[in-house]
Amino acid sequence: MDFSSFVTSVGTSFLIFVVLVLLYVWLSKKPGNAVVYYPNRILKGLDPNEKGSKSWIQEALSSTEQDVISMSGVDTAVYFVFLSTVLGILVISGLVLLPALLPIAATDHELRNVVLSGEAKNKTFTDLDKLSMANIQAYKHVSALRANALISPELKPEQYAILVRDIPPVPEGQTRKEQVDTYFKTIYPDTFYRSMLVTDNKEVNKIYKELDGYKKKLARAEAIYAKSKATGKPEGTRPTHKTGCLGLAGKSVDSIEFYNDKINELTPKLEAEQKSTLREKQLAAALVFFTTRVAAASAAQSLHAQMVDHWTVIDAPEPRQIIWSNLKIKFFERQGRQYVVYIVVALTILFFMIPIGIISAFTTLKNLRKLLPFLKVILDEKAVRTVLEAYLPQLALIIFLALLPKFLLFLSKTEGIPSESHAVRAASGKYFYFSVLNVFIGVTVGGTLFSSFKAIQKDPGSLVRILGNSIPENATFFLTFVALKFFVGYGLELSRLVPLIIFHIKRKYLCKTEDEVKAAWTPGDLGYGTRVPGDMLIITIVLCYSVIAPLIIPFGVAYFGLGWLVLRNQALKVYVPAYESNGRLWPHINVRIIAALILYQVTVLGYLGVKKFVYAPFLIPLPILSLIFAFICNKKFYRAFHDTALEVAARESKETPSMEQVFRSFIPQSLNYEKNDDDQFEDALSQVSRTGSIV
Amino acid sequence: MDFSSFVTSVGTSFLIFVVLVLLYVWLSKKPGNAVVYYPNRILKGLDPNEKGSKSWIQEALSSTEQDVISMSGVDTAVYFVFLSTVLGILVISGLVLLPALLPIAATDHELRNVVLSGEAKNKTFTDLDKLSMANIQAYKHVSALRANALISPELKPEQYAILVRDIPPVPEGQTRKEQVDTYFKTIYPDTFYRSMLVTDNKEVNKIYKELDGYKKKLARAEAIYAKSKATGKPEGTRPTHKTGCLGLAGKSVDSIEFYNDKINELTPKLEAEQKSTLREKQLAAALVFFTTRVAAASAAQSLHAQMVDHWTVIDAPEPRQIIWSNLKIKFFERQGRQYVVYIVVALTILFFMIPIGIISAFTTLKNLRKLLPFLKVILDEKAVRTVLEAYLPQLALIIFLALLPKFLLFLSKTEGIPSESHAVRAASGKYFYFSVLNVFIGVTVGGTLFSSFKAIQKDPGSLVRILGNSIPENATFFLTFVALKFFVGYGLELSRLVPLIIFHIKRKYLCKTEDEVKAAWTPGDLGYGTRVPGDMLIITIVLCYSVIAPLIIPFGVAYFGLGWLVLRNQALKVYVPAYESNGRLWPHINVRIIAALILYQVTVLGYLGVKKFVYAPFLIPLPILSLIFAFICNKKFYRAFHDTALEVAARESKETPSMEQVFRSFIPQSLNYEKNDDDQFEDALSQVSRTGSIV
Repeated sequence: MDFSSFVTSVGTSFLIFVVLVLLYVWLSKKPGNAVVYYPNRILKGLDPNEKGSKSWIQEALSSTEQDVISMSGVDTAVYFVFLSTVLGILVISGLVLLPALLPIAATDHELRNVVLSGEAKNKTFTDLDKLSMANIQAYKHVSALRANALISPELKPEQYAILVRDIPPVPEGQTRKEQVDTYFKTIYPDTFYRSMLVTDNKEVNKIYKELDGYKKKLARAEAIYAKSKATGKPEGTRPTHKTGCLGLAGKSVDSIEFYNDKINELTPKLEAEQKSTLREKQLAAALVFFTTRVAAASAAQSLHAQMVDHWTVIDAPEPRQIIWSNLKIKFFERQGRQYVVYIVVALTILFFMIPIGIISAFTTLKNLRKLLPFLKVILDEKAVRTVLEAYLPQLALIIFLALLPKFLLFLSKTEGIPSESHAVRAASGKYFYFSVLNVFIGVTVGGTLFSSFKAIQKDPGSLVRILGNSIPENATFFLTFVALKFFVGYGLELSRLVPLIIFHIKRKYLCKTEDEVKAAWTPGDLGYGTRVPGDMLIITIVLCYSVIAPLIIPFGVAYFGLGWLVLRNQALKVYVPAYESNGRLWPHINVRIIAALILYQVTVLGYLGVKKFVYAPFLIPLPILSLIFAFICNKKFYRAFHDTALEVAARESKETPSMEQVFRSFIPQSLNYEKNDDDQFEDALSQVSRTGSIV
Repeated sequence: MDFSSFVTSVGTSFLIFVVLVLLYVWLSKKPGNAVVYYPNRILKGLDPNEKGSKSWIQEALSSTEQDVISMSGVDTAVYFVFLSTVLGILVISGLVLLPALLPIAATDHELRNVVLSGEAKNKTFTDLDKLSMANIQAYKHVSALRANALISPELKPEQYAILVRDIPPVPEGQTRKEQVDTYFKTIYPDTFYRSMLVTDNKEVNKIYKELDGYKKKLARAEAIYAKSKATGKPEGTRPTHKTGCLGLAGKSVDSIEFYNDKINELTPKLEAEQKSTLREKQLAAALVFFTTRVAAASAAQSLHAQMVDHWTVIDAPEPRQIIWSNLKIKFFERQGRQYVVYIVVALTILFFMIPIGIISAFTTLKNLRKLLPFLKVILDEKAVRTVLEAYLPQLALIIFLALLPKFLLFLSKTEGIPSESHAVRAASGKYFYFSVLNVFIGVTVGGTLFSSFKAIQKDPGSLVRILGNSIPENATFFLTFVALKFFVGYGLELSRLVPLIIFHIKRKYLCKTEDEVKAAWTPGDLGYGTRVPGDMLIITIVLCYSVIAPLIIPFGVAYFGLGWLVLRNQALKVYVPAYESNGRLWPHINVRIIAALILYQVTVLGYLGVKKFVYAPFLIPLPILSLIFAFICNKKFYRAFHDTALEVAARESKETPSMEQVFRSFIPQSLNYEKNDDDQFEDALSQVSRTGSIV
């Protein structure tokens, strides 16, 4: 790729970005779009334009971490710590490396003559020390954020509960409920509150969903009927629909009557199913509630049974993020599933290597012309050529990577992980390995191998030499890849063009009731599962290529700077977190930042080694130092992210919590439909003095 | 080594063994020797000859596991589980492998023609499965032993305490004691009993030891004086001694007066030092006591501080096995020390490779004659030659290995491990690596390399071939090594000749008081630190060589069979355990048994591969299966050995324990001299209602 096509690519990207930002400024001011651009504020009951006079950039820059936490939770705040840490790393790297490395990269083979480089080495050294220290500071900060969130007097039901799995078979003459209660009452005579058995809710969920669907349809039919009264004849037109396949075939019926019949038919069925679920479909898992946070935090960390695969406990996830269907999976089945999933992921990574390698090899123009000579006429057209050269490979890559996250999340859930946030972290880890291995190594090595295949066939020993020499050729690929991602990606993110269009279409043609309209604009969450590994890929690429193409550093800075700005805006105004893990994703991020740093340091070593730079051996301690830093971080901080420290849990809120409210918040919606005084709950309730307020 | 020298060696060993056993039977019946042969019974207040009519073999065979536990504790019982498991493995291996492998080993190169071998493979397969299953059974059994020991209503003070280290600096305006008490009272308002700060006892220990020494000397002088009254003149001779170097020079003084003066001088000094130690020499560590076992067990497993390197807790070791001087070492210093020790151990292993290699190379007669031709005349003497061939190499090896354990124990304590039993386990692990690497690999490879050095110099590629072919030559070396170890080693063990001689000399010439006599016969413990790795080395050698020299299996069976018998006798009658870790050494043993099995399976594979045995690939799943078994064992059982399961701790004894007795049992002797109502203790005592009985 020559310089002109590179400039074209970056220029076009920038132009698209400017257009999208202008679109955002214009569109976000229209009141009708407020629900698309300020849903988080609206859902929290705030005025969308509360800081009306400031521009969105000013707003984002002036917002504090506390603002982010109150609007979007600790996880989002931790994500910004990540963005700013990486930004800091790149800015420092840029300040130190650019003046030193640009001349080296420019003169290249006269490397040994560059007097500057000894100095550069020393600078890099202190620089890298700073980076590691910054990492420890960031870790400390996030740890404090987490502690504060856990200390907060706000009632978090999950802080009073533990999740118990692998309960052994019920002994003769006892019910499951008695078994669990006896076991925990013996161990915790003073702090045990009550237990909630996990049930197999598949059937009841199905009926609940069906019933809920009919209720929504009924509301919709009634809205249509009411509207027809207002607009047309005063007696209105009763809506009808066909009962056959997709509402296109079969007998035509009066919708309101039909749905009412269905609801009347399903309601008793649901109640019967709820009863039988609570009584007969109890699984070998339970939630156990304690009267104090310390008791729950301590119980979650303690071994309960002499056989480690019985009565296993972990801290309870938030009610909203429990993956109920995974709770019944047994200890060794979970282990087994985990390894099977690892193998599947490994195979996926290897299997995708092939298409990505082919794509990257095909999508350099020279290769295209070499392999498909009949395209020569089109490819020699200057305009076509520039655009193709600029976008083809990057686009293929981006689309390709977008297909994967759902599959990886599915795999992670298959492992038997009991909480949504944990599954997302697991998927994110897999996605990171996938993207780094495939995109970074696959494109670099694959592209190189393809073009040099014949040379290698003649002399296999030349492989190392070819790799060492030809990696720089791919640098511009990644430069444009990064530019495309941040300009177009963040432009689309900020302008929310796609959600805006979908919302307006839905509102105009599909939505009949208020609930439907709300469902049409309700935003998702920030989506760490794909966002974090995406960012990690960028930081890895930027760091590794910074040695051979230092120009990539400003692009990296722009990516994380723009990202911080745009996402700050989105976090404050748009996205609503689906769960809160109190920063548990940080150790995951931190270890990968350090991994990227080590990969970077090894690349520097290798590159300087290839270039026969005499001071290269002095850099060998760097990766070792980074490893020690990673080790210290892990030892000093990690466990506080896995377990709740008792000193944190011990700062009880002054008020006695409503234990009943805690308990009820864990009852699945489908079991808590209209009556919630069924046996299991009623039995337990009657044993407890009702001290708290009942909601 | 030819067959005759092999027979000579084994025969001589057996003869020595028979003589030693006969000596034992004769000597142990003399009443004057009872304290040497039955010290454990005597110390427990039992009649040494309670089962007088039975022979020692009958007694050992008829003893139950419960007998072993009541006489020598759970650790010893676990050691016997280890011996019998290994014995079982070898008996099964012998039954299956001997009929199949003996003909193979005999016919060797016609291996492919042996029809039996397919069958042998299948047998080995099911056999190995059984071995792994036996391992799981053994693990389950030991786990139950541990649980029973922990459930027992007998008061174990360490079950009510945790050890807290890395206490942060004392906040302004608080004492260390207040800091600790406040911290734990906040977290455990109901179950916290009191705390005991760890102090720097170096000075007070020194004075205490000096004072104690003078007291013993005074008692001795008084005994001499009393005796002189009885035998000589009625007024007696007052003993005197010189105060100078070694009691040989200087002024002659009246011993009784002199020691009384010293004691009167030191007693107030000790009291003053005790006071100042308790007040001023407090360290950043403490023992914290709880009123229930569950609270202590749960606290020991929970994270207390948000910064993982502050307020670190572990379960308290038994009072008698706390290594007090290690308690002050800080979190990251412990980590650092650990890695430094690992490096030192690795260097030791590598460094010792050289002398052992040289010894083993020199000590084959052929080599001696080759290298030291002037010895030819002596070496060609038939008698000299046979004896030398039989014993030289093995003796060098055994003496060599005996030097090491103390050094490794010292290194393990340097790591900062807080309990004696843990340090012994750590040392035992190091000793295992050392002995397997050095003895097994060093002697095998070293001996082989030395004799083939010239061949390799000419053609380095021949190394693999030489190794594959020449390992069998070393088999007889190990055969005699094993025979020597069990016949002579267990003979000496049973007959206790060395302790017997030392005891009689001491009693006759040195001991004057009853205490001194008792000190002369008080036995040590079984010494797992060196015994376990020694046994592990034997099982590794026997398993690995069983393929190429199946005759080694009966030797292995004899080693573990005789070992079981002799040590059962010793455990019931002689040794007194120095501490009780409730079987915590088992996981350590189990993982090494499986490691030996895997090494064995890989050896089989390699050997059959070298011999081009067509069915060899079918054996590849074996090591993988073993790994899975190891994984399952570890997952299912290990944590119950590291932590105390709460269901076990929850079975409280009916009686309320005397919490004061629990507390007092942790006070170091040197601080608890005559007055024990000093400030620290008194302060704490006054806060507690004295519910329990005071001892």
